[in-house]
Amino acid sequence: MFKTNAYFDDKVLSIAFENQEGKATVGVMAPGEYTFETTSVEYMTVVSGEMQVQLSGSNDWVVYKPFETFKVEANTSFNLKVTTDSSYKCIYK
Amino acid sequence: MFKTNAYFDDKVLSIAFENQEGKATVGVMAPGEYTFETTSVEYMTVVSGEMQVQLSGSNDWVVYKPFETFKVEANTSFNLKVTTDSSYKCIYK
Repeated sequence: MFKTNAYFDDKVLSIAFENQEGKATVGVMAPGEYTFETTSVEYMTVVSGEMQVQLSGSNDWVVYKPFETFKVEANTSFNLKVTTDSSYKCIYK
Repeated sequence: MFKTNAYFDDKVLSIAFENQEGKATVGVMAPGEYTFETTSVEYMTVVSGEMQVQLSGSNDWVVYKPFETFKVEANTSFNLKVTTDSSYKCIYK
């Protein structure tokens, strides 16, 4: 019933769903460094663990902890470093 | 790499992970009514949507919204009503 998507040799796995927040996923990332490309605006909320985030055009890495959210613009990319299994919610706008 | 588990005719799907919070899952539930049995203490946190929760031995249904957490004792059961796709984190202690 729910669709899963795997990325980066299955080191990132997500489940898609949709409700009043819009189209969304919850997922888990294994430790690693990842670059994601966006096609819509994304609101990423850390659910467990921790994510180091570098937005496109920024030199800075910012740390996000559980229930903290960062916004990524559409049609850009962002870099993530994860040092422990970490879970997230992503809402697509 | 990450193990998924499906329950209730695939209306509930979860991904298992483990980090400093302990053994955990994130998952999604489709609308429906579910009874879950526990083998360990569970800390359930709503991530998106809403869950109506009735703990074992209680007549009351309590509503939990995103980032609200309820605790379920080990070796008991609890009832959930979900009226919209809802996601959650569960930590097993």
